[in-house]
Amino acid sequence: MEPIFEMEMKVRDYECDLQGIVNNANYQHYYEHTRHEFLTQHGISFARLHDDGIDFVVARLEMAFRSPLRSGDTFVSELALEQEGIKYVFRQKIYKMPERKVCNSARFDCVVVEHGQLCRSRMFDDFVKQVNKKTL
Amino acid sequence: MEPIFEMEMKVRDYECDLQGIVNNANYQHYYEHTRHEFLTQHGISFARLHDDGIDFVVARLEMAFRSPLRSGDTFVSELALEQEGIKYVFRQKIYKMPERKVCNSARFDCVVVEHGQLCRSRMFDDFVKQVNKKTL
Amino acid sequence: MEPIFEMEMKVRDYECDLQGIVNNANYQHYYEHTRHEFLTQHGISFARLHDDGIDFVVARLEMAFRSPLRSGDTFVSELALEQEGIKYVFRQKIYKMPERKVCNSARFDCVVVEHGQLCRSRMFDDFVKQVNKKTL
Amino acid sequence: MEPIFEMEMKVRDYECDLQGIVNNANYQHYYEHTRHEFLTQHGISFARLHDDGIDFVVARLEMAFRSPLRSGDTFVSELALEQEGIKYVFRQKIYKMPERKVCNSARFDCVVVEHGQLCRSRMFDDFVKQVNKKTL
Repeated sequence: MEPIFEMEMKVRDYECDLQGIVNNANYQHYYEHTRHEFLTQHGISFARLHDDGIDFVVARLEMAFRSPLRSGDTFVSELALEQEGIKYVFRQKIYKMPERKVCNSARFDCVVVEHGQLCRSRMFDDFVKQVNKKTL
Repeated sequence: MEPIFEMEMKVRDYECDLQGIVNNANYQHYYEHTRHEFLTQHGISFARLHDDGIDFVVARLEMAFRSPLRSGDTFVSELALEQEGIKYVFRQKIYKMPERKVCNSARFDCVVVEHGQLCRSRMFDDFVKQVNKKTL
Repeated sequence: MEPIFEMEMKVRDYECDLQGIVNNANYQHYYEHTRHEFLTQHGISFARLHDDGIDFVVARLEMAFRSPLRSGDTFVSELALEQEGIKYVFRQKIYKMPERKVCNSARFDCVVVEHGQLCRSRMFDDFVKQVNKKTL
Repeated sequence: MEPIFEMEMKVRDYECDLQGIVNNANYQHYYEHTRHEFLTQHGISFARLHDDGIDFVVARLEMAFRSPLRSGDTFVSELALEQEGIKYVFRQKIYKMPERKVCNSARFDCVVVEHGQLCRSRMFDDFVKQVNKKTL
């Protein structure tokens, strides 16, 4: 799967814990922010969707911690997206810059919940096809 | 002003930053949680209020950091409440246990916003009188 | 694997996001806090270990989101622990109370890093055996 | 006092709470990150200082919440810095872009603690003079 979006971020000191490295939970924050920025770039607002009764939620995730990020580090967060039945699978990676060393890799299985009901979303199905076409 | 509510909490390691002490912003979290637990105990749900279009928001705050909390510390968070015109003033303190040493003291000026409009809330006015009467 | 530790916690409003449910990353916080409280109960301080050059770190995790926690919810966080070679595997679950409904389940593979070097820790090996014996 | 540093940031959705606005405690995070980026730009690393036994800590803060930031908002965070005896006073503001509307203003009184001892730092005294000279 080819990455179709990436953005650069920088570690903020408050994200580091007493081990002097970025606390694990913050990678989930970085990945979430990346997914939302990706959606925003394609005109999809996570907040507006929610106001319309549509929630895009994580059903399952896997994360591998290879090398920790530290205070002052700059990193690139990238994502690829594919569909597996009712699930939208984001494969995401975080690379420390400038050496582009993989620090963390993850997989997020997302689903669409409309008014509390798990459902298949035609809009997202089309969206996944469209964004992947662009990168060919 | 007499404190009218207190609760005990324990530092969670992820709340500590690379200095090995609780990151400053977490005191705001502790104080917020204390205010909300206090309201909940009196049958007022911050979340339900929001769903009804009523938001109880912080307009101003002051905080003094006397002594830092660290990994493993247990502390008591207490509050007093009084009214100053349209403002509901919470005076809050955090004491490290078991020595009950003041670690942090704060003042939060809250206001009520109904459907986006700053307003005087009869419900909260009565509430402040009632909770303070109880402690006499 | 049998759970060998559990603790009760309560959702704090600041842990909820604009969807009105606990933000995903906070489950990682809940699970981390549970692991650290478990270790603390057995005389092992995560912070003190770090000061001694020993870091207990997460190498990999999996998390399944079954049902979201919301403002006001009380939950129990439990853990089981076993060894797989160099890895200490925590199987953790979060149950909403009082109905004890599973909200989230997770697996954390932890390893020991001494002075920057991945290593096998006799102390932790013994610890895993000992805590599991107690529950028989 | 003239602002001597500013940086642009964007609200991340996980920073918003169930009221749909940025949770109060995150402004403290934004302000801290701004101070640290400012120091970094002048060759001062908060993390490295800590490793050398020197901690730059907040002793007192005031914050006024004028208008909330929301999902998708971009903002500028600026700071001014002056000395008052042993205190380094940061006056900071957050403006919503592109209209540059003040959302939040704050004052942070910082002090220097060397090996656990509150002290006057010649290095920081010189630093404050130097950065303010540049803007004349």
